[in-house]
Amino acid sequence: MKGICIVGYGYWGPKLVRNFLAVAAGRAVAVCDESAERLQRAQKDFPGLKTFASFDAVLADAAFDAVALATPVSTHYPLAKRALEAGRHVLVEKPMTDSLATARELIALAARERRVLMVDHTFVYHPAVRKIKALVAAGDLGQLRYIDSTRINLGLFQHDVNVLWDLAVHDLSIVNFLTPERPLAVSAVATAHTPGAPENIGFIVLRYASGLVVHLNCSWVSPVKIRHILIGGDKKMVLYNDLDANEPLKVYDSGYQARTDEERNRLLFDYRVGDVYSPKIPAGEALAALAADFVRATTDGVAPISDGRFGADVVAILEAAQRSVRQRGQEVLLG
Amino acid sequence: MKGICIVGYGYWGPKLVRNFLAVAAGRAVAVCDESAERLQRAQKDFPGLKTFASFDAVLADAAFDAVALATPVSTHYPLAKRALEAGRHVLVEKPMTDSLATARELIALAARERRVLMVDHTFVYHPAVRKIKALVAAGDLGQLRYIDSTRINLGLFQHDVNVLWDLAVHDLSIVNFLTPERPLAVSAVATAHTPGAPENIGFIVLRYASGLVVHLNCSWVSPVKIRHILIGGDKKMVLYNDLDANEPLKVYDSGYQARTDEERNRLLFDYRVGDVYSPKIPAGEALAALAADFVRATTDGVAPISDGRFGADVVAILEAAQRSVRQRGQEVLLG
Amino acid sequence: MKGICIVGYGYWGPKLVRNFLAVAAGRAVAVCDESAERLQRAQKDFPGLKTFASFDAVLADAAFDAVALATPVSTHYPLAKRALEAGRHVLVEKPMTDSLATARELIALAARERRVLMVDHTFVYHPAVRKIKALVAAGDLGQLRYIDSTRINLGLFQHDVNVLWDLAVHDLSIVNFLTPERPLAVSAVATAHTPGAPENIGFIVLRYASGLVVHLNCSWVSPVKIRHILIGGDKKMVLYNDLDANEPLKVYDSGYQARTDEERNRLLFDYRVGDVYSPKIPAGEALAALAADFVRATTDGVAPISDGRFGADVVAILEAAQRSVRQRGQEVLLG
Amino acid sequence: MKGICIVGYGYWGPKLVRNFLAVAAGRAVAVCDESAERLQRAQKDFPGLKTFASFDAVLADAAFDAVALATPVSTHYPLAKRALEAGRHVLVEKPMTDSLATARELIALAARERRVLMVDHTFVYHPAVRKIKALVAAGDLGQLRYIDSTRINLGLFQHDVNVLWDLAVHDLSIVNFLTPERPLAVSAVATAHTPGAPENIGFIVLRYASGLVVHLNCSWVSPVKIRHILIGGDKKMVLYNDLDANEPLKVYDSGYQARTDEERNRLLFDYRVGDVYSPKIPAGEALAALAADFVRATTDGVAPISDGRFGADVVAILEAAQRSVRQRGQEVLLG
Repeated sequence: MKGICIVGYGYWGPKLVRNFLAVAAGRAVAVCDESAERLQRAQKDFPGLKTFASFDAVLADAAFDAVALATPVSTHYPLAKRALEAGRHVLVEKPMTDSLATARELIALAARERRVLMVDHTFVYHPAVRKIKALVAAGDLGQLRYIDSTRINLGLFQHDVNVLWDLAVHDLSIVNFLTPERPLAVSAVATAHTPGAPENIGFIVLRYASGLVVHLNCSWVSPVKIRHILIGGDKKMVLYNDLDANEPLKVYDSGYQARTDEERNRLLFDYRVGDVYSPKIPAGEALAALAADFVRATTDGVAPISDGRFGADVVAILEAAQRSVRQRGQEVLLG
Repeated sequence: MKGICIVGYGYWGPKLVRNFLAVAAGRAVAVCDESAERLQRAQKDFPGLKTFASFDAVLADAAFDAVALATPVSTHYPLAKRALEAGRHVLVEKPMTDSLATARELIALAARERRVLMVDHTFVYHPAVRKIKALVAAGDLGQLRYIDSTRINLGLFQHDVNVLWDLAVHDLSIVNFLTPERPLAVSAVATAHTPGAPENIGFIVLRYASGLVVHLNCSWVSPVKIRHILIGGDKKMVLYNDLDANEPLKVYDSGYQARTDEERNRLLFDYRVGDVYSPKIPAGEALAALAADFVRATTDGVAPISDGRFGADVVAILEAAQRSVRQRGQEVLLG
Repeated sequence: MKGICIVGYGYWGPKLVRNFLAVAAGRAVAVCDESAERLQRAQKDFPGLKTFASFDAVLADAAFDAVALATPVSTHYPLAKRALEAGRHVLVEKPMTDSLATARELIALAARERRVLMVDHTFVYHPAVRKIKALVAAGDLGQLRYIDSTRINLGLFQHDVNVLWDLAVHDLSIVNFLTPERPLAVSAVATAHTPGAPENIGFIVLRYASGLVVHLNCSWVSPVKIRHILIGGDKKMVLYNDLDANEPLKVYDSGYQARTDEERNRLLFDYRVGDVYSPKIPAGEALAALAADFVRATTDGVAPISDGRFGADVVAILEAAQRSVRQRGQEVLLG
Repeated sequence: MKGICIVGYGYWGPKLVRNFLAVAAGRAVAVCDESAERLQRAQKDFPGLKTFASFDAVLADAAFDAVALATPVSTHYPLAKRALEAGRHVLVEKPMTDSLATARELIALAARERRVLMVDHTFVYHPAVRKIKALVAAGDLGQLRYIDSTRINLGLFQHDVNVLWDLAVHDLSIVNFLTPERPLAVSAVATAHTPGAPENIGFIVLRYASGLVVHLNCSWVSPVKIRHILIGGDKKMVLYNDLDANEPLKVYDSGYQARTDEERNRLLFDYRVGDVYSPKIPAGEALAALAADFVRATTDGVAPISDGRFGADVVAILEAAQRSVRQRGQEVLLG
C-alpha cells in the first residue's frame, strides 16, 4: 500500500484518519468528503492533511492505492465497486453492504482484481474479544451452548438503517468470530415507535445445528446503557461487560450437569458455582490493530480476519433477520 | 373465611403458612401433604400446626373453607376444581393451570359457586411493582412504548414446566398489571440443551395495538443473576432492579422526541437526559399483602387483583408462546 | 460441656440460641433474661426452651456448665467473673470487657479455674476472612503493607459504647487474626454530633514495627452502607466487600516496585496491573462455626482462636484509641 | 489580558494550552519549557503555537501579560514571584506553594502590583461540585456534620510531594469551597513504604468549631480506584462518586434525629431513610470554566473564586497536616 484515502469525514472518518496515521509508517493518508465544511474540519483536526472534494479525484490519484469507505451504508456497494474496478484495495465500514447479493458481487470482484477487500468489524480486533476467542478455541468453555447479548442505550437514531443493522451488526461479527459455526436459521422481531423512522428496538434469535442458541437485544431507546454479552459453555461461562473499564471480562467456573435419577426415572441437575476470574486485558486500540492488519494484507496478500467473506456472513444474517421481521418473527432459513 | 389449609409443603408452602399465620387473626391454618416426611417438617417448623395427610381429609373438614394450592402445575386444575365443587375458596399457585381451557373452566365454576378464586401472582403485591403501577397510572411515564425484562440465573431446573412457564410467568403478571392493554400476538423461541428436559432458555416478544412491545429474556443457565425490568414511556423511563436492595427503582427523566427537518425532509431526534430519581419503596412482604387480600376477598366478596381472570390472561399468553415456540418463532395471535 | 445458657435475649441472643441448638448434639440450651417480656419472646421463638429469670438461678443449675453472655458491655466483666468463679465455661460477646485490666483479670481467673474463656469475635470464623488468612499465611500477598477498612452505615446508635467500640471492634479482630504482629501505637479521632450521646464517627490509625499501617473509618451516620476492607501486600492485594454476596473477595495481582534511576539519582516506580481473581467462598454461617469451636474447646481443653488473650488484645487497642481520642489524635503507645 | 504563556509542558500543561486556546478569543497563547523535547511535542500537538525556551524570554515579551505555571511545586513561589514583579497576572498549579509564608508573600505582592493571582483548583469549577455547593448554600442539606473523602488508586508516585500534597489538596479545595468555615485544628498520619520516597498513604482529620468533622483517606497504593466524597448534613446527605459517569451525585433524603426518652432518661434516635435523587449534572469541562474565569478576572479586576487567599487556605491546612504527621497524629491548631 502506498497511500490510503478515507472517504467520508463524519463520526467514524476522523478515527480512521488518526489510526491510519499512526500505523502509516510514511505512507500517505488523505480524506475525501463532498462537504467543504467537513474538509475544513479535517484540516483543522489534522493540519497539512491532503483532501479530496470528490471520489473521482481520489480514484484519479495513483498515489492512493487504497480507500476506506466511512459513508452511509447504501453507498458502500457502489463506491466499493468503483474503487475495486479502479484497482484500489478497499476497507469498508460495517455493515459491508445492504444486501447479500451485492456483498457477494464485491467479493468476486475483489478476487478478480486481486485486491484486498476488508470490512471494518472493529470488535474482532478488540483485545477483550480476542481473549474470549482464545478461551473458546482452547476449549476452556467447553461446548458453546448460548450467547446472549444486550446492547442498549439512548440514541443515536440512524436514518438509513434500523437498530439491527446498526447495533446487532457488532454482535453478529463477534458471534461469527467466536465460533466457526454459522446459524441454520434466524427469527427476529423489531418495532418502530416513530412513524417513518427505522425500527428502534429489535431482537434476534439464531438457531444452530450444534444446539447453540444466540439471542440479541438491541435498542436505541433505553435510559441506561448496557453492553453485556454472556457466552455460556458447558464447562465455563463468560460475561463480557464492555462498559467495565477495570474488569471487562469475567470467567465463571460455574455450570450444571444433568444426570438420571434411576429410581424416580427423572433428570436431576447438579449445579457448580465456583471461582470467578477476571483476566487482565492488554491495552491497545482495536481500530489501530485493524488498520495495521489492512496495511499488512495489502502487502503480503494474505486475507485479514474480517475479509469480504466474513462481512458477507454478517450481512446474510441481517438480511434474513429483516425478512423474519417482515414475517413477524417466523424463522427464516439461512442458505 | 374460617380457616385455610395450605396444600403442598415443598418450597412455597412454608412461606404461605407463615404469611397466613401472620394475617389469620384467629382463623385456623393447616397444612396438607401426602408425604409424611414433609408433614413432620411442617410440624417442626410450626409446632402445633394442624396437618392433613390427604386432600380428601381437607375437604371433609368444614373448619377449612379455603385452600391454598402449592402443588405441581399439572395438579392445579383437578385440585382447584374439587375444592371449588366442595364450596371452598381457592388460592392457587402461579401459573394458574397449564391450559387456557381449564383456567376458564375454573373461573366459570368459581362464579357459579360464588367462591373466591385467586392466583398467587405475588409480584402484583410487591411494593416496587405497586410504585411503578402508580407512576404509570398517574401518567408520569407517558404512553408506554416498551417493557424489556431480563430474568436469568443459574438453576433451578423445573421438571414439569419449562423456563417460560417458570420465569416469564412473573413478568407477564407484572406487564398485565402495569397496563390494562392485552397483547395482540406473541412470538417466542425456546431451547432445551438437555435432551428430555424442559426448555432452559426462552425469549418472548409481545405485540400490542398501541405500539407497545414487550420482550422477555428468561434463562436457568446464566452464571450471573439478573432481574432487570425496563419500562419505557414517551415521557420517562423506569429501571426496576429487583436485586438492588437499596435502590430497586430508578426513574429516568430521559427520552427523545422526533421532529421533521423540513429543509432536508427527514426526521431529527432530540434527546433528553435528565435527573434520576429513586423513590423510597415502603417495606412490607408482598406475600403477606396477598394473603391479606385473599382473606379480605372471602369476607367482602370483592374480587382480588390477581383473580381467576387475571391468572387466565397470563396462561393465555404462555399457551400462545408455547405454540409459537413449536412453530419456531412464528407469531401467534391472541383471541 | 453438658449445657449452655445464653444470657441476654436482645439482638444477638436469639442468634446464639439458634446456633447452639444447631451444634448442641443433645446438650441442653437455655436462655436467661431479667425481662419477662423477652423470655416470652424466647419461648415463642423456640417452643419448649428452658428459661431462667435470673443469673443466680443459672449458676445454681449444675446442668448448665457453660454460659454465653449477650448482655451490655459494662456487664461483661462482673457476669463473666461470677460465672468463672462458679466453674462455668464462658463465651462473652465482643468487646470482651470495657478495660484491659478487667480483661486480664478474667484471663487469669479462667486459667486458674481451668475453664474455657472465649470472646465472640464472629468475623474470625467467617469463611471469607478465613480465606484471606489462608492467602496471607501462604505468602500470596507478600509482606503486608496496609489494611484499610471502611465500615459505615446509618444507625444503630449504641447507648453504652461509642462507634469505635461498636464497629472498629470487628476490624481489629480481623486485623489481629490476619497478622500475628501487634501494633506499636494507635492514633484516633472521634466525634459526637449529639450532646450526651457516644461518638458516632471515628477513625483509628495503627502503626507497626514492620511498616504495616492500619486505618479504620467507622460511622453510624452514613446514608450508604459500606463494608470494604483493603489488604495491601507487596505482591498482591485483596478487596473484601462484605456486602457483595456473589464476589466478596477480589484478589488483585497488582502492585508496584521501586527502583533507583542511577543517572538521575531518583526513585522510579514500576506498576503492575494484572488479573483479578474472585475465589469461591464456601457457604457456612460463621456463628455456627464459632459455637462448634466453643463446644469443642470445653471438651478437649485446647483454646479456641478467639480466646481471652485474643479478646484482650482487641480491648487493649480500643482502650488506647479511647485515650488517643481524648488527646485529640496524639499517638498512644501500646505496651 | 493580551496573551498567556503556559510554563511547563508536562502532564498538565497540554490541558491548559487546549483550554486557554478554547477560551482565548483571539488572545495569544504560548508555551515555555526548558526541555527542547517537550517544546517539540507542544508544536506537534498544537502546530503553529509560539514557544519559549526560557522563563526570562517569556517575561521579556510584553505580548504575554499572563503566565500559567504548570511546573513542580517547589518552583511555584520563585516563578510566581518573578512573574508578579514583572507585572504579569499569574495562574499557578495547586498546591499554590509549599509553605504558608511564601503563599502569603505572593498574595501581598499581587495586591501591591494589582495583578490577578489565581490557583488552579480545578475541582472548584467542576459542575458536580458546583451542584453540591448550591445544595449546601440553599440549606438543603441542613447543617454540615461531616465530610468524608476516599481518594485512592494505584500510582502515580510523585517525587517532590507526598500523597497528601498530591491528593488531599483536591479534597481540601472542595471542602473549603463548600463551607465558608475554616478548621480549628488538623490531625494527620502518613506512611512511606519505600525508604527515600514521599509518604504514599495518608489520613487527615479536621476539627471545626461548628462540630463539622472532615476526614480524608489518600493512597497511591490501592488496587482499586475510589473517588468517594460523602457530605453529611443534618437534613440530607450527598454521595459524590467522581467515577460514576452517569450518576456522579446522589442526594439521600436520609438522616436521624435524637430525642430524649424521659421515662428511661436516655437518648433515642429516629432514623429516616427516604428517596434518593440523582440530579443531572450539566456537561462542561471544569478547566475551561477556570480558564475563562482567569481571563475574566484579568479584565474586570474582580477576584476569581480560587484566588490567592483561597489557595493559601489550602496550603495552611497541608502545612499543619505535615506538622501533625511529624508529631505522629497530634492535633495542630490552625491560626
